[in-house]
Amino acid sequence: LPTLSGKSATSPALGIGLDSCVIPLRHRGLSLVQTTDFFYPLVEDPYMMGRIACANVLSDLYAMGITECDNMLMLLSVSQSMSEEEREKIMPLMIKGFRDAAEEGGTAVTGGQTVANPWVIIGGVATVVCQPDDFIMPDSAVVGDVLVLTKPLGTQVAVNAHQWLDNPEKWSKVKTVVSRQEVELAYQEAMFNMATLNRTAAGLMHSFNAHAATDITGFGILGHSQSLAKQQRNEVSFVIHNLPILAKMAAISKATGQFGLLQGTSAETSGGLLICLPRDQAAHFCSEIKSSKYGGGHQAWIVGIVEKGNRTARIIDKPRVIEVLPRGATATVFALDNSSASSDGSSFPF
Amino acid sequence: LPTLSGKSATSPALGIGLDSCVIPLRHRGLSLVQTTDFFYPLVEDPYMMGRIACANVLSDLYAMGITECDNMLMLLSVSQSMSEEEREKIMPLMIKGFRDAAEEGGTAVTGGQTVANPWVIIGGVATVVCQPDDFIMPDSAVVGDVLVLTKPLGTQVAVNAHQWLDNPEKWSKVKTVVSRQEVELAYQEAMFNMATLNRTAAGLMHSFNAHAATDITGFGILGHSQSLAKQQRNEVSFVIHNLPILAKMAAISKATGQFGLLQGTSAETSGGLLICLPRDQAAHFCSEIKSSKYGGGHQAWIVGIVEKGNRTARIIDKPRVIEVLPRGATATVFALDNSSASSDGSSFPF
Repeated sequence: LPTLSGKSATSPALGIGLDSCVIPLRHRGLSLVQTTDFFYPLVEDPYMMGRIACANVLSDLYAMGITECDNMLMLLSVSQSMSEEEREKIMPLMIKGFRDAAEEGGTAVTGGQTVANPWVIIGGVATVVCQPDDFIMPDSAVVGDVLVLTKPLGTQVAVNAHQWLDNPEKWSKVKTVVSRQEVELAYQEAMFNMATLNRTAAGLMHSFNAHAATDITGFGILGHSQSLAKQQRNEVSFVIHNLPILAKMAAISKATGQFGLLQGTSAETSGGLLICLPRDQAAHFCSEIKSSKYGGGHQAWIVGIVEKGNRTARIIDKPRVIEVLPRGATATVFALDNSSASSDGSSFPF
Repeated sequence: LPTLSGKSATSPALGIGLDSCVIPLRHRGLSLVQTTDFFYPLVEDPYMMGRIACANVLSDLYAMGITECDNMLMLLSVSQSMSEEEREKIMPLMIKGFRDAAEEGGTAVTGGQTVANPWVIIGGVATVVCQPDDFIMPDSAVVGDVLVLTKPLGTQVAVNAHQWLDNPEKWSKVKTVVSRQEVELAYQEAMFNMATLNRTAAGLMHSFNAHAATDITGFGILGHSQSLAKQQRNEVSFVIHNLPILAKMAAISKATGQFGLLQGTSAETSGGLLICLPRDQAAHFCSEIKSSKYGGGHQAWIVGIVEKGNRTARIIDKPRVIEVLPRGATATVFALDNSSASSDGSSFPF
């Protein structure tokens, strides 16, 4: 759980529990913000895996509205079960992906550690020294705020379903609800989304006066919403009405019963930011982030509201699922069984 | 190899290659210094293992004469092959050892990441924001300087020999040169030394005008001396004449032929600092660090000199081995075969 350190009465401090730690420094109002994450590869493309790992580390800074990173360390383990040929082919690609994403984040990899291990590990440490205005403490949601999500859910389902394409037993359990082509497209889209930095969203948090944010990773949208709710200074609760999900992944989750995607507990990797915005700013945020000014590759959806409450979060009984089509896919490839397909979440559905 | 970043003409910058990276910050002459290290347990006592891992991470800061640390992140993996009971007994002890050493270093663990892995991993990330006077760039050795080492060599040999106590085949190869009791005592001493912070030495680097330093870890005293020599601005070389070694470990290295301890290539874990000091300061440094003012648990030996040269390092043909007795051991326990046993390295032997 998040703890407030007693180091300083005036500088904000944030301990273990949310996305980054914030350490007040001895130097004139500056704070050290840093975060680390490492995990095991989950996509087959080593270059994309490197990008995803770096995007996932940086995301913890972006969740605090921080857009700069002063240094990145890379944490790596090479698998002992790789042949020398595999190692020399795979590891440089993974490292290049990681470095390229760091560069896109305006930083560079200047240090790290590599070990040998039974499994491949990739991760990093992102560090920045901030002035007070550079970051937004994730504790100021107020009743009436609106919750916005900047990437669709369903990455874990897409990654798993893609593995099942080569596993007839597993595939037989989902083939009635999804085609091979739909899984391929969803996997590509998930990979692209996981490799996308949340940096644009972090910058827009300042433009649109965000009150708090977190990024969605291993505990799913519900778990991270609950962590963020606990952190609030006001007596508020988060209620989620809409779930933007990669097209067809909700059907797979239902058919297998093993992910909890509609319950908000399915793990995400390098997921979007969940941002508390003032009610009159949320729709503007969603349309602004889609602007070609930011490359045209971003989306955002209004997913819930902030109510008076006891610092908890919940998903309503029958949330509206927004089926998010992969970019470039036409609606005819995706045989959607209802009319909720949408890439436009800027209207209030409740 | 170390690279100088082009970020700033006035602030020093140090890239990948030596102990820590130094990143000039946007904030008024401040620099970000950080380092990461993680590895696998090498001693049986989980609490001591935690201390050693933390001391090993901090040591990279201490090698730059930095005595403070603003934040520590802990990197941990729990072994999947542990039973729940083992896990609940071992991991909290390891974490406590790590935290206690961080506290001794004047810092706290405020963040980190834990994963499951076939093997246990423990390590960390140490970060500090420095003013220019807080750190000593490791590049200013001059001809005539003296090299001082602050912990004896031989940790890897002691750890391995200790494992061989339970392996009759391995033990048979060394039992003619060492007793079981000597190995037990050397192992305890190695463990104690590895868990000792180099913080006192880092502080004294400032008092005695150190010109450069590094810490001795995986590449042995020769490997790290060579890295440090490459980093020098002046045309110098390092020549090592003396090797302070845990008593009897040189004999084991010779008997097995597998460590290279006398060649300076035997790996150390959380080893001492190798410091370039002005000739007239080195002996004072060695006597000061032993002072009861610093707890009386520290030692240092003059091990070599800085000559004119092409930025390389070497050990002389027949280096003098200083047999360092474990604290509390009497000379009668250790049947030393020559008269070089010494805990006093403050005289010039060359």
